[in-house]
Amino acid sequence: MRDILVVGSVALDSVRTPFGEAEEALGGSASYFAFSAAHYAPVRIVAVVGEDFPPRHREQLAARGVDLSGLETAAGRTFRWRGEYRIELGHAHTLETQLNVFATFHPRLGTDHRRCPFVFLANIDPDLQLEVLDQMQGPHLTVSDTMNYWIARKPERVIEVLRRVQIALLNEEEARALSGETQLARAADRLIAMGARAVIVKKGEHGALFRSGDELFVTPAFPVEGLTDPTGAGDSFAGGFLGWLARCGRSDPGTRRQAMACGAAMASLAIEAFSPARLVTARPAEIEERVRALHRMAHFDLEPLFDRSHGGEARSAE
Amino acid sequence: MRDILVVGSVALDSVRTPFGEAEEALGGSASYFAFSAAHYAPVRIVAVVGEDFPPRHREQLAARGVDLSGLETAAGRTFRWRGEYRIELGHAHTLETQLNVFATFHPRLGTDHRRCPFVFLANIDPDLQLEVLDQMQGPHLTVSDTMNYWIARKPERVIEVLRRVQIALLNEEEARALSGETQLARAADRLIAMGARAVIVKKGEHGALFRSGDELFVTPAFPVEGLTDPTGAGDSFAGGFLGWLARCGRSDPGTRRQAMACGAAMASLAIEAFSPARLVTARPAEIEERVRALHRMAHFDLEPLFDRSHGGEARSAE
Repeated sequence: MRDILVVGSVALDSVRTPFGEAEEALGGSASYFAFSAAHYAPVRIVAVVGEDFPPRHREQLAARGVDLSGLETAAGRTFRWRGEYRIELGHAHTLETQLNVFATFHPRLGTDHRRCPFVFLANIDPDLQLEVLDQMQGPHLTVSDTMNYWIARKPERVIEVLRRVQIALLNEEEARALSGETQLARAADRLIAMGARAVIVKKGEHGALFRSGDELFVTPAFPVEGLTDPTGAGDSFAGGFLGWLARCGRSDPGTRRQAMACGAAMASLAIEAFSPARLVTARPAEIEERVRALHRMAHFDLEPLFDRSHGGEARSAE
Repeated sequence: MRDILVVGSVALDSVRTPFGEAEEALGGSASYFAFSAAHYAPVRIVAVVGEDFPPRHREQLAARGVDLSGLETAAGRTFRWRGEYRIELGHAHTLETQLNVFATFHPRLGTDHRRCPFVFLANIDPDLQLEVLDQMQGPHLTVSDTMNYWIARKPERVIEVLRRVQIALLNEEEARALSGETQLARAADRLIAMGARAVIVKKGEHGALFRSGDELFVTPAFPVEGLTDPTGAGDSFAGGFLGWLARCGRSDPGTRRQAMACGAAMASLAIEAFSPARLVTARPAEIEERVRALHRMAHFDLEPLFDRSHGGEARSAE
């Protein structure tokens, strides 16, 4: 049983970037995550949509094998987000957030949801994230995400989530805002001092870093040719990360390292199109090639530096 | 013969950071480079100082085995730079640049200088960098650096240098300014399209990337505990990079990769103190441990993703 539960938003996004725009496209943290993770392992979504949610989006998720038994339809309108990205892509400028049906949502988990060994608490109200944790039955791995929207409104609850999960995912801006530290390695250390067991800081074009009490690991970003829309990069990263761990059925340090590269590969696909379109069309060979490329980009064979057999005067040893 | 020639500035720096300040401390691109590279291989400096240059600085360089036969003393004052770093460390704010004796300097290379197989054209007037290239006798490897000061004043000459060397080093800001591209992977591609054979983009706390026509390699930054003064980080990186290549006597892709980690290790030492003080006191074991840590930070064992033996439905293959 290697199922992944994701609780997060399913949304209609309107996004403008220097390369085009999308109106009311399928979006939301749980959607991006599910399309990404479904390449690796079975995914179950718990979320809510309004009565206006287009059936074709539901069908597209189902076609990827995503379990939608936990996707409620509530009276009202679907969650909507409107944002734009300026020349310095990577930082979204939120123009409007309409919680709509999420304003009164409380996640209700069925038996199959509660028993999922891998859990991703995508970006939603931290109070809802805590409700999910309370309902889980001995999960193997819990990972959280958040957004500056919640860091600004409920910092204590965001910190409580971060203390209760095994790994907290944040982007640069969020890590700085929550920790009060500018330098990201220090920000990660500070978040661990605040009670996080492990953090992943997503750094956009600079990749991502994993920090726990005794480990530091970094993955580069896969360089995309046609950056189109950075929306969902973080959730797609999380999908690749948890997806690989779930596929392997373990989360030891070695597996986690390749999982970071799987995350980076999925994020690079997500940003090549508006909405999760590229995550849907990505072929396994294409994903595998990006993970291999990330491995090549970062690997070197370590030779001893100052040992005598290497030749040279070892000036430094004088 | 694995000697390294560096032509660049030897200066008196006055720097203020959030952690303290230094007045007229030993600085300059050639100084940082020399203290860094001297850990790995013999270094020869070609530069100029004024009559006011303190003898103790000259002695400190000589004590590290640096050949100073090409360090001229000219009538006038030593080159001076005054800068400060704000909270967002990494970007220097130049308050004052006094070229002084560098205003009329022309590098005069002796026979030993001309025959050096490894050449670093540190940040000086690109016209002087070209004069040095014209005097070299079949060097094995030429690497250049620059600064936005010259990109703003002599962009065509900076580009000419970049076309004539094997590897051009730039920091983030310089890569963006010279290429007109915001995203760094694209900026590197653009610089190659402009005629560079290979570029290294130094990204501060995000490490550095190497890009040539057929290769992309990244090294993370070594996370320092006590960041004090980022001045000289780039030149110290260059010192570790060329130092390791010179020590090995080759510059093939595999050796270059470890050279990037040696560069990152030296940069991390440089920024722990004002002036090149930490580069002087660094022990070989300490340098080696940082290179090993950088290797650990980036390495993972690649497992096939979607092959059947791994278990799982290979959903993605459907």
